[in-house]
Amino acid sequence: MHIDIITCLPRLLDSPFSHSIMKRAQEKGLATIEVHDLRDYSTLNQRQTDDYAFGGGAGMVMMIEPIDQCISHLQSKRTYDEIIYMTPDGEPFNQKMANQLSLSQNFIILCGHYKGIDERVREYFITKEISLGDYVISGGELAAAVVTDALVRLVPGVLNDETSALTDSFQDNLLAPPVYTRPEEYKGMKVPEILMTGHHANIEEWRLQKAIERTQQRRPDILKDSGWLKKQSDRSNKRQ
Amino acid sequence: MHIDIITCLPRLLDSPFSHSIMKRAQEKGLATIEVHDLRDYSTLNQRQTDDYAFGGGAGMVMMIEPIDQCISHLQSKRTYDEIIYMTPDGEPFNQKMANQLSLSQNFIILCGHYKGIDERVREYFITKEISLGDYVISGGELAAAVVTDALVRLVPGVLNDETSALTDSFQDNLLAPPVYTRPEEYKGMKVPEILMTGHHANIEEWRLQKAIERTQQRRPDILKDSGWLKKQSDRSNKRQ
Repeated sequence: MHIDIITCLPRLLDSPFSHSIMKRAQEKGLATIEVHDLRDYSTLNQRQTDDYAFGGGAGMVMMIEPIDQCISHLQSKRTYDEIIYMTPDGEPFNQKMANQLSLSQNFIILCGHYKGIDERVREYFITKEISLGDYVISGGELAAAVVTDALVRLVPGVLNDETSALTDSFQDNLLAPPVYTRPEEYKGMKVPEILMTGHHANIEEWRLQKAIERTQQRRPDILKDSGWLKKQSDRSNKRQ
Repeated sequence: MHIDIITCLPRLLDSPFSHSIMKRAQEKGLATIEVHDLRDYSTLNQRQTDDYAFGGGAGMVMMIEPIDQCISHLQSKRTYDEIIYMTPDGEPFNQKMANQLSLSQNFIILCGHYKGIDERVREYFITKEISLGDYVISGGELAAAVVTDALVRLVPGVLNDETSALTDSFQDNLLAPPVYTRPEEYKGMKVPEILMTGHHANIEEWRLQKAIERTQQRRPDILKDSGWLKKQSDRSNKRQ
């Protein structure tokens, strides 16, 4: 997977891709992530990339020309599956979208900043607009980092068994069950006894039960589409 | 506002708070953000902070003891309004939650990693569990950075007029209207004429109309609670 991130604050992204799983994915050659400074594509003095909004009002707007120049330059070297713009009014990001996008190869992610980008960029160049969620942050950089992380970790080989994505929340429309580690007792707080029995079938059953309970309690909206409630009731009918 | 972030990957957060609005907020003395290395609170050899899950299964689990030590140390210096854990099964983050939290002063944000944290931490120490959205990323660090950014930018004085939060998406249950900047025409793509008229009342009316249209098209779910559709129909009734 190859991801080109376009931003007017490239240094903000210095550290997020240099550690842990994102670092290892790049070292293994499974992902390349390049951050491009939009200012390098400005033709103006002082490498300006934004200007006041036509029609007045607070907030600077990112100009179309440097973005066009940068995207054209990248497209001269590679064909892209998606040119993504991170924006709070985009399509809400979720695990299903992450799974689908992770099957593609080449992405540009454009980070907005200030009051946003010239609408003509969105109309003519962007193929997908993604929102992290219903909230506003200072710029698209952290949003691009989050989406990059969510996609790269799904590339086969990036996660090893210890970090396997298969038991993550949302992969089965279920939240993950509670987990515990040493010590067995800490200041009077104990680990559930079943986890200490070594009886794997019972433990897996307990975990599924807890995952369903937690999802029912916290996110009934995702549970109702999952088929888990039906499977569970089929199973208890069989036992009777 | 003071935010203490607890993580086993402190270096991952080196750059996100050192630029742009987060940097200026700290320079102005309006926010302090401290990143704490969980490994400093481990009592084990090699500063270990995680271990295998009781009951088996893929993924390491963060241990309760170093987290307890770190939180206790921080609490000896300050009283916290919330001790937040970033987790995909937490309460989905949104602008309303950001607005509410931004009225508080002191936060701890604990970043999960690997398969999560020992459930006893969640049960006994955490006061609020927050999810960025319905997707999974490698760890809580980027999630903590996103929440920190969303809260700090709401502290009065952090944003100047040019970056005012008042016209952001979601603040009125409306997505933001399209914005344009120079040049007026670029490769045949033109700016809407109304924005060039200098007629401010008409421009504001056009923007509101576009914001409502965009919200209706992209996010009817947030529009229906907003009262905007009613206001709009009242207005057009008055004109008739």
